[in-house]
Amino acid sequence: MTTSRFSEIPGASARHRCGLTLDTILASGIESAGENQIITDGGMDLSYRDFGVRVRQLGHALMQQGIKAESRVAVMERDTHRYLEAYFAVPMLGATLMTVNIRLSLEQIRYTLEHSKTELIIAAAEFLPMLEQVYQGADSIPPIVVIGHAPTALPFAGEYEALLAEADASFVFPAVDEDAVATHFYTTGTTGLPKGVTYTHRQLVAHTLAVGFAFGTTDDYQSFRRNDVYMPLTPMFHVHAWGLPYVATLLGVKQVYPGRYEPSEIIRLVRTENVTFSHCVPTIMQMLLAEAEKNGTKLPGWKVIIGGSAMSPALAKRAMASDIQVFAAYGMSETCPVISFSRTTAAEAKANPEKMCRVGHAIPLTELKIHHPQESAAQRRGELVARCAWLTDAYFDDPHMTAQLWRDGYLHTGDVAVQDDDGAFHIVDRTKDIIKTGGEWLSSLDLEACIAEHAAVEEVAVVAKPHEKWGERPCAFVKPRNPDMDPETLFSEIRNALRTRIEEGKLPPYAIPDEIHLVDMLPRTSVGKLNKKALREQLNTD
Amino acid sequence: MTTSRFSEIPGASARHRCGLTLDTILASGIESAGENQIITDGGMDLSYRDFGVRVRQLGHALMQQGIKAESRVAVMERDTHRYLEAYFAVPMLGATLMTVNIRLSLEQIRYTLEHSKTELIIAAAEFLPMLEQVYQGADSIPPIVVIGHAPTALPFAGEYEALLAEADASFVFPAVDEDAVATHFYTTGTTGLPKGVTYTHRQLVAHTLAVGFAFGTTDDYQSFRRNDVYMPLTPMFHVHAWGLPYVATLLGVKQVYPGRYEPSEIIRLVRTENVTFSHCVPTIMQMLLAEAEKNGTKLPGWKVIIGGSAMSPALAKRAMASDIQVFAAYGMSETCPVISFSRTTAAEAKANPEKMCRVGHAIPLTELKIHHPQESAAQRRGELVARCAWLTDAYFDDPHMTAQLWRDGYLHTGDVAVQDDDGAFHIVDRTKDIIKTGGEWLSSLDLEACIAEHAAVEEVAVVAKPHEKWGERPCAFVKPRNPDMDPETLFSEIRNALRTRIEEGKLPPYAIPDEIHLVDMLPRTSVGKLNKKALREQLNTD
Repeated sequence: MTTSRFSEIPGASARHRCGLTLDTILASGIESAGENQIITDGGMDLSYRDFGVRVRQLGHALMQQGIKAESRVAVMERDTHRYLEAYFAVPMLGATLMTVNIRLSLEQIRYTLEHSKTELIIAAAEFLPMLEQVYQGADSIPPIVVIGHAPTALPFAGEYEALLAEADASFVFPAVDEDAVATHFYTTGTTGLPKGVTYTHRQLVAHTLAVGFAFGTTDDYQSFRRNDVYMPLTPMFHVHAWGLPYVATLLGVKQVYPGRYEPSEIIRLVRTENVTFSHCVPTIMQMLLAEAEKNGTKLPGWKVIIGGSAMSPALAKRAMASDIQVFAAYGMSETCPVISFSRTTAAEAKANPEKMCRVGHAIPLTELKIHHPQESAAQRRGELVARCAWLTDAYFDDPHMTAQLWRDGYLHTGDVAVQDDDGAFHIVDRTKDIIKTGGEWLSSLDLEACIAEHAAVEEVAVVAKPHEKWGERPCAFVKPRNPDMDPETLFSEIRNALRTRIEEGKLPPYAIPDEIHLVDMLPRTSVGKLNKKALREQLNTD
Repeated sequence: MTTSRFSEIPGASARHRCGLTLDTILASGIESAGENQIITDGGMDLSYRDFGVRVRQLGHALMQQGIKAESRVAVMERDTHRYLEAYFAVPMLGATLMTVNIRLSLEQIRYTLEHSKTELIIAAAEFLPMLEQVYQGADSIPPIVVIGHAPTALPFAGEYEALLAEADASFVFPAVDEDAVATHFYTTGTTGLPKGVTYTHRQLVAHTLAVGFAFGTTDDYQSFRRNDVYMPLTPMFHVHAWGLPYVATLLGVKQVYPGRYEPSEIIRLVRTENVTFSHCVPTIMQMLLAEAEKNGTKLPGWKVIIGGSAMSPALAKRAMASDIQVFAAYGMSETCPVISFSRTTAAEAKANPEKMCRVGHAIPLTELKIHHPQESAAQRRGELVARCAWLTDAYFDDPHMTAQLWRDGYLHTGDVAVQDDDGAFHIVDRTKDIIKTGGEWLSSLDLEACIAEHAAVEEVAVVAKPHEKWGERPCAFVKPRNPDMDPETLFSEIRNALRTRIEEGKLPPYAIPDEIHLVDMLPRTSVGKLNKKALREQLNTD
């Protein structure tokens, strides 16, 4: 007998084929947490063991509501222990957790609830007025489990705590296949409808192990270990808070859930609960720094991953001045999300903040590489592509967009990157924003950074305009600090400053924009990202 | 569409389904190793990148030899970079690495080579005389790739380095399914033939991630991280050196391979190469301590996992006196092997060495529990059983023994354990060695430990003898330090000492052995373990 497959091994059927499923993360966490607790709702605390009981109660309560394998259960809630309960209980039923992005437009929220075929919604009372608007005129509305108390005309399935109190604390979850879809959420861009992204148990567990391995074994400056105290500062509806609550639970560390984000309350929690590990987007870090600086508060021993969009070296230095240990990680909604981070020590971070603002090195078991289209091979830059065991399989029910995401066996990030001499990657631009001029690639982000250095510039966006001879040429949209400033003077100063940058070798010689436009404000998408598509359309219709 | 399976998601076929395969460990290691090297053969060093090239060359050379998916390739070699090359190259071909236990009898070695259907052997020249004896009179002998040079009458397939030199350094390994069997070796007990144990790529990768997560995120006292230097001190044929070379490679740390174990050379390597992380059985640690103590050598900063058999608190204290950071881990050939370890800080280890000699707590994603047969439920002790994603599926081609290993969906360890108040487990005895007397369980190990405290006792073994009234009663076999000692005096002193232990509550009242026998030596198995089966047979034939 030379066979090598499980099912063909004699006697193998007697064993338990242990899948990579989320219930094993919860069980390990409870086993190893000891006295550690989950702090939530502004002071309440919950032991891991009690948390485990509540997960069983929620599982039983949802089953009583008719939730079964492959049902979609949507959640609209602030960052609390209840959201974490849903992170486990819903997938452990074999059902799928749909995390609703409450910052989308009403129309988009309705689209995502309907497109995902949501069968039940768990919603905090504060979101009921929003849901009433979302479902205005709807023929069919899913039943709603309400967290808290508020009158509503929506179909009411019960109050969250009341349902848990009635549920069976010794409920046993069914066996779930590791390839069952555990989570489902939507990502939006500048074009088209929100796209559904899903993850299986196996993908989430593999991500949890690899991320835990990466941050466990790295330098103390940026480590996440059993002696840490965790608080998420990326909303739990956003790519399951970057997957870190699963890592925290597997570690069995003390966890702090901040509820609705209030800068002063967050700073207070970091200090009083001795929070040591968090993660957020640059905007949140800016908000927290403004609060901390106002009061001269230092936050030593607080390690914070910055992701979502690029951290500037200026922000990194500012955070370090408040004793915060920041560093960048990289990923997308489609990558679970973490696939790389800037490995650094405290000394390196201080000496060279630019380095720890990069995409950095791939985490274990992840392949990152630059996809070289013919035209840019000589420049060592191209689209960053990835491959590992926790990338989303496909956009939900959208083969057309999926075919753009997955090409040649790699997930295409849509980011243009360069690999530095030390093997770390850094992002140059979005593929759709890079300016292809005379056979060369010009980074709109590089050009924006140089223009933004001018003291009179408040905001700037650079986009490509089609050009007969060169293919494309850069055009800039500038919002001045002083709206009364003479445009021609400003434009001339900007061009002179760019010439200096070209002489210094910081920009290529063909970087001076053909056009500079003065604007009152720059267009943004519903989630606050710069809408370059609108600017390109504006140029084309001029 | 509410489907949740990969193959049913529209467009999903465009993506690469990334398996948990060993090639991803090697690729991540090379990517993250930087300047770290693999030190081997008493001074030679190899960059990770060069190591990767040699793995490709070995893969190509083996393919040229006719090795393909599901072929078994056996290795007989000391702990060197060549063994590590085989750890990757053989499984990455879809073939299976058979690690030959060179300490077995010639007859057992031949059995394991034939039972595994080995198609090719890679053997160091020093093992050729052994192989000639193994295959004396054999009809068919697999071809042998020889490491080094020596004349032989065995079928010669080429010299290892010569084959690599001829091979294609740009060889691309085929895609391998994560459920393909990667490794195969044999475990021996006191009864029957050696039993074949196999692991798939998926099991080895899951073990690597979970072990890396566990030792990465634990206290500095016992951590294994990117800044460590690794040296195995468990032979690479023994459960793939406890799987730690795969963890070390994924970390990209400097690795030191000691070749043949020589205490003075090992101590020298620890000091000159700044080794910080190793693992060994208690016997090896004793040997190294004798060497270190002889020269008054301290080994600060050296973390060493002790496993294979129980570490005594005395050994723990002795190792700590030489500044070595020891702690126990637990597992078996059938568990990949690591499934638990004694979590400890330096302060706890010093204050309470007993605690870090225990089986301890399960590593992430592992379930450990006590299986309570009716008779012992009240005693909180019973057989330790386990479940996780990296336990062996089955004994190779042995459904009978597999049915004993896997029962009720759990792997049965054959160890009797107790769970302490802090949740950690400790081993009381082997299930087959525990003495069932008057409906109670008596640990032969506890009794042996108490008898061994007597200054006149060199070695002791306690086994059960059938008893009409009590079911079983304990009998002791004692080897005295001084062979001329009067037996009756010794027996009387031992019984008195045991009565004191009973009064202190350290032993139950029924623990005094019915019989004590004086012996010149205790019987041992081929791998040096105490052979209690032989002692029980001796009692029954008396």
